[in-house]
Amino acid sequence: MKATDVQLQSRAAHPEVTVLDRWLAMRLQRAIEAVGLRLELWDGTCLYASGTRPIGDLVVRNTRTLLGLLVNPDLWFGEAFMMRDLEVRGSLEGVVEALSRLHPPFPSHTGFLRAALARRNTRRHSRRNVHHHYDLGNDFYEQWLDTDLVYTCAFFEDATMTLEEAQRAKLDLVCRKLRLQRDERVIEAGCGWGALALHMARYYGVRVLAFNISREQLAYARERASELGLSDRVEFVDDDYRNARGEFDVFVSIGMLEHVGLREFPTLGSVIRRTVRRAGGRGLLHFIGRDVPRPLNAWIRRRIFPGGYAPTLAQVSARVLAPAGMSVIDVENLRLHYARTLAHWHERFQAVADRVRARYGEQFERAWELYLAGSRAAFATGWMQLFQVVFAPFESEPPYWTRAEVYRENYSGVHLTR
Amino acid sequence: MKATDVQLQSRAAHPEVTVLDRWLAMRLQRAIEAVGLRLELWDGTCLYASGTRPIGDLVVRNTRTLLGLLVNPDLWFGEAFMMRDLEVRGSLEGVVEALSRLHPPFPSHTGFLRAALARRNTRRHSRRNVHHHYDLGNDFYEQWLDTDLVYTCAFFEDATMTLEEAQRAKLDLVCRKLRLQRDERVIEAGCGWGALALHMARYYGVRVLAFNISREQLAYARERASELGLSDRVEFVDDDYRNARGEFDVFVSIGMLEHVGLREFPTLGSVIRRTVRRAGGRGLLHFIGRDVPRPLNAWIRRRIFPGGYAPTLAQVSARVLAPAGMSVIDVENLRLHYARTLAHWHERFQAVADRVRARYGEQFERAWELYLAGSRAAFATGWMQLFQVVFAPFESEPPYWTRAEVYRENYSGVHLTR
Repeated sequence: MKATDVQLQSRAAHPEVTVLDRWLAMRLQRAIEAVGLRLELWDGTCLYASGTRPIGDLVVRNTRTLLGLLVNPDLWFGEAFMMRDLEVRGSLEGVVEALSRLHPPFPSHTGFLRAALARRNTRRHSRRNVHHHYDLGNDFYEQWLDTDLVYTCAFFEDATMTLEEAQRAKLDLVCRKLRLQRDERVIEAGCGWGALALHMARYYGVRVLAFNISREQLAYARERASELGLSDRVEFVDDDYRNARGEFDVFVSIGMLEHVGLREFPTLGSVIRRTVRRAGGRGLLHFIGRDVPRPLNAWIRRRIFPGGYAPTLAQVSARVLAPAGMSVIDVENLRLHYARTLAHWHERFQAVADRVRARYGEQFERAWELYLAGSRAAFATGWMQLFQVVFAPFESEPPYWTRAEVYRENYSGVHLTR
Repeated sequence: MKATDVQLQSRAAHPEVTVLDRWLAMRLQRAIEAVGLRLELWDGTCLYASGTRPIGDLVVRNTRTLLGLLVNPDLWFGEAFMMRDLEVRGSLEGVVEALSRLHPPFPSHTGFLRAALARRNTRRHSRRNVHHHYDLGNDFYEQWLDTDLVYTCAFFEDATMTLEEAQRAKLDLVCRKLRLQRDERVIEAGCGWGALALHMARYYGVRVLAFNISREQLAYARERASELGLSDRVEFVDDDYRNARGEFDVFVSIGMLEHVGLREFPTLGSVIRRTVRRAGGRGLLHFIGRDVPRPLNAWIRRRIFPGGYAPTLAQVSARVLAPAGMSVIDVENLRLHYARTLAHWHERFQAVADRVRARYGEQFERAWELYLAGSRAAFATGWMQLFQVVFAPFESEPPYWTRAEVYRENYSGVHLTR
């Protein structure tokens, strides 16, 4: 059944609540009551028994949604919300956060197997997957991202920072962790709209080769490079990072690993191995991760990030870095910074929701609303992690003697070279 | 054949160098020439062909040593050195460092299997293994460790620090990473001579329950606690950490994980799970690690650390922390600090080598000399790593908003409570 069929059905007149509906509702209510959620059926039926005030209500419009929520809640909650077969009363963020507490993130071997058996992100699939998400139109993202279009976790170095400041602080944190030196050669795998590549070239004087397979992003990045007079220092390449050749001082990848998939980890490892100079080389991976192996939420994979997979630190360290002959130098978990970043995005998105709905339709707008609220909840509750991992060839000296050095300078142009 | 037999044989008159000896020597010379080492046989025979000056010489005394070095170099180098069947000409540290470069530390699945099949460190075996190393006599360690008897990697926060200062800086770094608060309850698994437990209680005002199964160390630690008037705040328990009960704010273990062994990782995980408070709890593991799974050097396991195993970060994160419902918050690799620590120990050990030889015998003295020099080389070359891992229950807030906080205070009694 196609999405449009579901939508048509949900708009039909609601049938009577049957004995089966009440039985399904009772089971569902029992499952969500522990986290303070109340279920309401299309005729107002409510089986909430707890004495405490609920965090929010799930208002369900039909039997198929009740069934879907019981059988495959991960997929169905999103589908039903998107199609208006389910409405949320109260704060969407609060409700999603409560729901995410229903899943204790402990080891799941079946999840791991499913992920391992999932389709490989070949070069062709990657191009299609990336196109799905990142080629929605730069103007779409410009409406609610920061002015530099940084679509990854920010670093609220100072708790009072704006999103714009925190994104620049993140770019700078990455540069400082990498101890970039003037005229060094940097390879970036998956460069988004080019903010990091341009920041590195502008403030640290390095030369950057930045790979991306999103045409829309590349066009934007090249224009920015030209405006900033950095086209001679930053080359934006319309190609898969797996085709990269040559030797570099630094490898960096921010928010791309989530799109790589477990089965391509050895390939990523071999790219790192052949591109990073052994003596004095180093790199940084910034990625959404997990404590335990588990596939990405089914709805997110279907509607938002096809081919996405958030790995554990163990998987990245054993399957990407170790085979590349790299030692882990430093790991930082920034999950609460991502929760805050997402709260900013969500707030900005809500401010332009009407415009998004007018242009892309209601389903799209509701899907993005849920994706942003749900992601914030996942990071706030510890269901997902955000790791920055610094690595270096095992036989090479780590980039710093103590990492206190990383924090000694403020972000205020100490490294300004232009 | 027992060690004493080998020793007797090595003292016998050396036989002629045969054709077989020359053939073995040629193969061995070929293997070690790449790292600049020269082989010399008992009659002066030397097959070194390289045009470059050697880093050092291995002088071999008999055929069985030639054979041993070819067949099982990891075990035999140590055995032969200890028994004087092999002498090193030139710097022992330099030679061992060169030898360690012969092993590219890339994944070895057989090593991993061997480690997995190794005997379990049951409570009884652990007691025996610990006794083997740590009950050599406090006065032995007092001769060459720092004044606080800290027998783990120091932190040379400032490159000019003495060993004493760097050990205190390490203790303090651990406290700062853990954000200890006055009157919190801390459990320490494997407390050595008690330096960390006493530091935490003295400067951060926490209450510590510290486990150890080395009688000699415990006696020393209790005496120190009494001298410092801290007996009411620090309890040193003569028991296996696996028997720990109760709930604590903080779990800490410095240099014990290497003695746990892979097969007991789930048990350690369950101890962490049941002892760390979920809301606001956190912990730190400080351990010798590897980039890839590989058993500890065979000679080190035989003579120095029976039952020892240095795990990878992936193993610790997937087999200890994830099953305990803990998120990795922060990882720091301090391998070069351990190389420097070991250089200090080695230098101090050499200064008292005569006394050690007089009391414990030549074999013991040579074994320790090699162990210290070899360990320094292993950390200097990246063959081994030193990880500090901060963790917290996944649903709990990490102990700090940004880790810059860890570096904001100097070690100068900011937290002094007495």
